[in-house]
Amino acid sequence: MPEIIAGLKLSEGIGFGSIFISERADIEASNREIDAGQIEEEISAYKESIQAAHIQLRKLRENVDEHLDEDSAAIFDAHIMMLDDPGFNEQIINSINNLNNAEKAIQLAGEVYITKFESLDSEYMKARALDVKDICMRLIANVQGVQLTDLTRVDEPVVVVADELTPSASAQLDSKYIKGIITATGGMTSHSAIIARSLNIPAISGIPDILSKVTHGDDIIIDGFTGDIVLSPTEVEMAAYSEKLKAQEEREEKLKDFIGKETKTLDGINISLYANIKGPEDLNDVSSNDAEGIGLYRTEFLYMNRMNLPSEEEQFEAYKAVLSDMDDKPVIIRTLDIGGDKELSYLNLPKESNPFLGERSIRFLLKNEEIFKTQLRALVRASEHGNLKVMFPMVTTIDEFNRAKALLIEEKEKYEAEIGKELNEIAAGIMVETPSAAMISDQLAKHVDFFSIGSNDLIQYTMAADRLNEQVSDLYQTYHPSVLGLIKKVIDSGRNNNKWVGICGEMACDHKSIALLTGFGIDELSVSPKKILGIREYISEIKKTDMEQLSESVLSCDSAEDVLYLIEEHLNLT
Amino acid sequence: MPEIIAGLKLSEGIGFGSIFISERADIEASNREIDAGQIEEEISAYKESIQAAHIQLRKLRENVDEHLDEDSAAIFDAHIMMLDDPGFNEQIINSINNLNNAEKAIQLAGEVYITKFESLDSEYMKARALDVKDICMRLIANVQGVQLTDLTRVDEPVVVVADELTPSASAQLDSKYIKGIITATGGMTSHSAIIARSLNIPAISGIPDILSKVTHGDDIIIDGFTGDIVLSPTEVEMAAYSEKLKAQEEREEKLKDFIGKETKTLDGINISLYANIKGPEDLNDVSSNDAEGIGLYRTEFLYMNRMNLPSEEEQFEAYKAVLSDMDDKPVIIRTLDIGGDKELSYLNLPKESNPFLGERSIRFLLKNEEIFKTQLRALVRASEHGNLKVMFPMVTTIDEFNRAKALLIEEKEKYEAEIGKELNEIAAGIMVETPSAAMISDQLAKHVDFFSIGSNDLIQYTMAADRLNEQVSDLYQTYHPSVLGLIKKVIDSGRNNNKWVGICGEMACDHKSIALLTGFGIDELSVSPKKILGIREYISEIKKTDMEQLSESVLSCDSAEDVLYLIEEHLNLT
Repeated sequence: MPEIIAGLKLSEGIGFGSIFISERADIEASNREIDAGQIEEEISAYKESIQAAHIQLRKLRENVDEHLDEDSAAIFDAHIMMLDDPGFNEQIINSINNLNNAEKAIQLAGEVYITKFESLDSEYMKARALDVKDICMRLIANVQGVQLTDLTRVDEPVVVVADELTPSASAQLDSKYIKGIITATGGMTSHSAIIARSLNIPAISGIPDILSKVTHGDDIIIDGFTGDIVLSPTEVEMAAYSEKLKAQEEREEKLKDFIGKETKTLDGINISLYANIKGPEDLNDVSSNDAEGIGLYRTEFLYMNRMNLPSEEEQFEAYKAVLSDMDDKPVIIRTLDIGGDKELSYLNLPKESNPFLGERSIRFLLKNEEIFKTQLRALVRASEHGNLKVMFPMVTTIDEFNRAKALLIEEKEKYEAEIGKELNEIAAGIMVETPSAAMISDQLAKHVDFFSIGSNDLIQYTMAADRLNEQVSDLYQTYHPSVLGLIKKVIDSGRNNNKWVGICGEMACDHKSIALLTGFGIDELSVSPKKILGIREYISEIKKTDMEQLSESVLSCDSAEDVLYLIEEHLNLT
Repeated sequence: MPEIIAGLKLSEGIGFGSIFISERADIEASNREIDAGQIEEEISAYKESIQAAHIQLRKLRENVDEHLDEDSAAIFDAHIMMLDDPGFNEQIINSINNLNNAEKAIQLAGEVYITKFESLDSEYMKARALDVKDICMRLIANVQGVQLTDLTRVDEPVVVVADELTPSASAQLDSKYIKGIITATGGMTSHSAIIARSLNIPAISGIPDILSKVTHGDDIIIDGFTGDIVLSPTEVEMAAYSEKLKAQEEREEKLKDFIGKETKTLDGINISLYANIKGPEDLNDVSSNDAEGIGLYRTEFLYMNRMNLPSEEEQFEAYKAVLSDMDDKPVIIRTLDIGGDKELSYLNLPKESNPFLGERSIRFLLKNEEIFKTQLRALVRASEHGNLKVMFPMVTTIDEFNRAKALLIEEKEKYEAEIGKELNEIAAGIMVETPSAAMISDQLAKHVDFFSIGSNDLIQYTMAADRLNEQVSDLYQTYHPSVLGLIKKVIDSGRNNNKWVGICGEMACDHKSIALLTGFGIDELSVSPKKILGIREYISEIKKTDMEQLSESVLSCDSAEDVLYLIEEHLNLT
């Protein structure tokens, strides 16, 4: 009897396989009582469990290095760091001295961290809580001499089902045999979601009672496009899903016709279609999807999931790799954008009550000039290898831009003096992400070389609604007339001052907003490489003049619903 | 040898007296070892310490009720609640079972809470950490049979000097003898600052080595206007400060000439000058300073520092008291504005990663309709007793206003049906605090009866800078052209739609911004009652036409510095 269950989409794609239940190994700290005479013994047992964990994690990391990206491998680095955390160790030793057995001491110390992380109600911190649970489970298993489940031993197509996947289990996933992941809990930023997307494994979450509904070994279909899973599918359903998979493949094949074509509206207006990347590892996707440039190189990934800052040389190599690969096509590299929801643990930055309204991005860089200068110098050096444009994130005032640009010029001149020749000018622009920057965009346009609208943050600040807070997700309104009014203001300011204006948030991907932005007169869209051909096709089907009428009428709407209604009405008519 | 030391101003005023050093009582948990046989005994000692603390705190609370306001008395409620916290109790009992003595167990449990609260880096949570320290110290003292310092025994004019004042010590302050407070640490939102302001006791903080610089019993002058303290003042200095105090009193006397006058510019334009209040307790100040109405009644104070929601009747009485007292003058009552930095602990709301971008104010009310309706019903009933206007805070979309207004009308009609008569219309307006509301103010103006600009939040969201985060305080720019552009937009929208526009943030108090706002065409300013007469005097000295020229030129400035330069230049010329 087939059953269809709807969940939360975490990673797109369709998968078939047999169910592989990966319950969290049932490891519990024992309540063994110990007396003062046994303290030494328990401390040794604890220390041995740490040694064993070091070896296990290093081995897993190596294993994982071969077939997974840095993000996933870095999970093990985080665990290894936790093993060496002096506070954690001290707490456990103290606890054993207070006559807790080693397992119990590990569990109690872990709970302090977990409670703290979980109480912070941030997706990021909850993921950290999961790291702690995982490492404590490993240590307790080591004390008990028990072995943990090993997903690397799977050798047939399976769909993994779990309450929640531990970070270390996630890092053992391999798309060769793992055809899907279904979890009871875990959001878009959970380890398993991140890794599933990076490996193109379909993933679905948010089915609290999933473990009670499935049987190990049964057939299952997972549809990461709709969020549905089909238990014990009939042949009819299997055929339907095969059909769907095939249609998807055919559509992708057809889009290849747009490779090598210009991005141009029906009435002949060119729009530049660039790619968002997080490093040289995305260049294959960039070229296979025929991006016309890089619109947003998120350099923060160079800084994340490691234990110290990347050197100038390391950065230079990464930037150079991208610039050379892109030949003379524009490459817009955004300087380090941390803070907000992105932390670099090794910098030990103070916690803020409202990190999205705190010392993030350019604010951080301007207060940490050495970090900024190292990046600017690497950029200056790399600029010899392609068509570099530097972009500063989160600018709020003209003064911030001017200070950042002065540092760029300073580093450029220093380097020119060293090598004894002049480099080409490096264009310098900003992300428009704050209402302030949008409101003064006419003044800013006289200073910058270009604008790129960061719609995700601009919406968040304009609506005063944390884009990661589900309680206010109804107020995070992409189509609210206030947001659209600010976007139009930026585009107008660019045009009036002969500076181009792009956009690199989620808005650049959606057909409805692309229609509006075309009407406003956007010059460039920067999107995930895989979206490029579909958008090029869409733009080839619309007329700018037509969208201009639409875009004028939306600004006087009362609400996002009214705007969407107008757009939908307009697009169906044309 | 006199010495002048500069600190941070927490509460205005000038005070003289002898130094009273109130060091934190030197209470430390002993390291007494206990064995399993003593566990019972230690648990009883702990339980007795809790009983004793209950009695002490109740007595202090009663004592304080007589001469302090609710805010201060409520500190003891918070402490009493902590005594009854099951998690706290359980942790201590467990810890004693793990062979910690009662004092140590109290200290260890306290430290867990303190570390957690302090790690959150919010002024509010730091104040909570101080509460925990205070209550743990009281419990440990009780176990040891030691008595804590008692400020209520002071019987001559003193200036209290302390590292930081414990909340319970703060609550024992009495302006009869306590002429000033100086602390090494503690910000504007510390307990001692809040209580000092509520009692009009001058207070200064931020002098880390203060305890090493002063001697108990020496003379001292504290100047809460400048933030200076004078140790061992000479007669000359005493005379100078007496002079200063006298000048201040004379200036206040002279301002009384403005009582009973209209607030009007030199060229005859009326501006309404209203008062901000937090409850009926401020009505004396309102009438003695001749406010023309209440521009902002912050009803959240009715909900804070207590253990449950205020009843409809309680609210009705408070609103009625204000409305009747004000006769027919307008009274703008803002519905509950919690969230952000204002918590109601008894509601146990989930922690948010960015509370300022979270479920606050009207967002909270619309999701908690019962709480909202109770308040609206109390407002409807109170409306019979004066000239009530209802104001909804933190509105971001028109839909929010419409839903809130519909609930107001629903409650009004229900009440009218009950009493069998129709009440007067109740005007309903909004605070404009989000960039979104400002951007769509033209559309909003067609729905609301009035706007009141909440400049503090509007600045925070426009500049994307937490107004309580010192790391980004340089970006919290009142005079940034982006902020001024949004304010002008709101005022223009009001005028174009025949709706009045007021302002009730800090901006309404400053002469430079009053000049600008007058130029923009503001209709109303709402300020702390004590500021009213000075502002009325200032407005009587400027011309609107003159300020109009100024206000047009500031919007195209590049920066807040440029704006300030223009204003200062302009005001000196006129």
